[in-house]
Amino acid sequence: MSTSSNLPAVTVLGLGPMGRSLAGAFLAAGLRTTVWNRTPGKDQELTEAGATAAASAEEAVSASELTVVCVVNQDAADAILRRADVTRALKGRTVVSLTADTPERARDTARWAAEHGIGYLDGAIMTPAPSIGTPEAVFLHSGPRDLYEQHRPVLERLGGTHTHLGEEIGRAATFDIALLDIFWTAMAGYAHAVAIARAEGVTARELSVFAQGIAAILPPLFEQFAADADEGTYSGEINPVTSAASTMAHVVDVSESHGIDAGVMRSVEGLARRVIGLGHGTDGFMRVAEVLGRH
Amino acid sequence: MSTSSNLPAVTVLGLGPMGRSLAGAFLAAGLRTTVWNRTPGKDQELTEAGATAAASAEEAVSASELTVVCVVNQDAADAILRRADVTRALKGRTVVSLTADTPERARDTARWAAEHGIGYLDGAIMTPAPSIGTPEAVFLHSGPRDLYEQHRPVLERLGGTHTHLGEEIGRAATFDIALLDIFWTAMAGYAHAVAIARAEGVTARELSVFAQGIAAILPPLFEQFAADADEGTYSGEINPVTSAASTMAHVVDVSESHGIDAGVMRSVEGLARRVIGLGHGTDGFMRVAEVLGRH
Repeated sequence: MSTSSNLPAVTVLGLGPMGRSLAGAFLAAGLRTTVWNRTPGKDQELTEAGATAAASAEEAVSASELTVVCVVNQDAADAILRRADVTRALKGRTVVSLTADTPERARDTARWAAEHGIGYLDGAIMTPAPSIGTPEAVFLHSGPRDLYEQHRPVLERLGGTHTHLGEEIGRAATFDIALLDIFWTAMAGYAHAVAIARAEGVTARELSVFAQGIAAILPPLFEQFAADADEGTYSGEINPVTSAASTMAHVVDVSESHGIDAGVMRSVEGLARRVIGLGHGTDGFMRVAEVLGRH
Repeated sequence: MSTSSNLPAVTVLGLGPMGRSLAGAFLAAGLRTTVWNRTPGKDQELTEAGATAAASAEEAVSASELTVVCVVNQDAADAILRRADVTRALKGRTVVSLTADTPERARDTARWAAEHGIGYLDGAIMTPAPSIGTPEAVFLHSGPRDLYEQHRPVLERLGGTHTHLGEEIGRAATFDIALLDIFWTAMAGYAHAVAIARAEGVTARELSVFAQGIAAILPPLFEQFAADADEGTYSGEINPVTSAASTMAHVVDVSESHGIDAGVMRSVEGLARRVIGLGHGTDGFMRVAEVLGRH
């Protein structure tokens, strides 16, 4: 692979499955790519593909204007970035964190970066590692727009769609957390449904065909319910929360009759019952979003 | 509307939103349709469209070979069908229950029907009332195949797709419960995500665009995870449950930092932690389906 010094340079810190995919995509796009991982032995494929393995984090961040950090969480990122030698080496350069953590941690990192003259953008990757470098990848970014525009040409070498959500540094993490909330809650529903189906002699594959149909009706409902939530009009004309609660009770009943823990659905039913108890039984289930948000 | 006596006849018991949609679709398809509801006053639009309003449930079921029951739950259905006069009138006729309840209740109803010489099919409607009569409607059926085939021409007048899931009478309710489990759990995740987003200054509509993207990646994952579940190979190569649990903890953290109840995600995280505690931390999250199913 050609690694002419005219090409932009980028450093990737963290070589887990996602970090390796990021570095691999930068390399495949022809960027001069420097890599480093706290524990050694993760860079062989990348160096064979043309990456430069740095001997230390300080050396790694010194090699490029832009450093992308992708480690397990912000604690791990801080343990690398906030060492005095690394912080010093980053002065006047930019860090893009693709490490998943909370909006508050992103804000804290932005304060640290500002104190040390480091450019900082926070980001989130919404698709699995194999999507990186393909049109399927989805990246969310937040932070100063001029800084984002400056590094966007390099970031877009990762493929997929990149959305700048705004200057407030916590926004990428907020969207990340909210979307993962939806994802993992839905997955828990699916795993539980499979457990119930199996107890009744139905295989996961038999269920899957119809489960895919359920997933397919979610997008338009999400759109409609977002309008309900923003406008505070939780129409329950088609499906009042009383009816939803009755359905949820059936799910709990069948689950527990098979000795299958129904804790998740018990919590969901609890939300519906609270909405009813607060006098909103004829509203739609999305009233839950408002009841949850009350202080 | 023409209501020639050569057309098949059907009776609809229960005139809530769904029952009215069913009766309306039968009428629109040209069937002689008799309707009845326990509390009066729900049949005006239907009789104006050509339906016959029966004075009693007994009279209603006597008017047709096929009676479709769609009431709030099986208790309500039993209160109508198991009255001696109604049971007697149903002898030699067929009941299709589109009332949502548990597989056990469907089996109990089948026993009652067999004892009284009544044909019985159980069914479930997986789409909301406005879908009835359109290609979007989804109906699941279970029970004796010959009985299903006999009444299928009438049932298919309801539009949409009809699937006979098998002779075991509980199967329609099993699929119904499992699919509603997925649906309402996912909806709870969405409502919670909207609450978190709002607390961070993000509107539901801003989130919705990306939430729809999350929903869109579910169908292929459901298919893949069903294969994992059926084969007992819960690959966590791309996303081990340890990583999922860490994400879930972030969701709980952000939620509770805003005073937003995180009970549902706490339960979900609990499932992931149990999988890890049982020694399956490198597996994928779908291992939960197996752990839940253990007795």
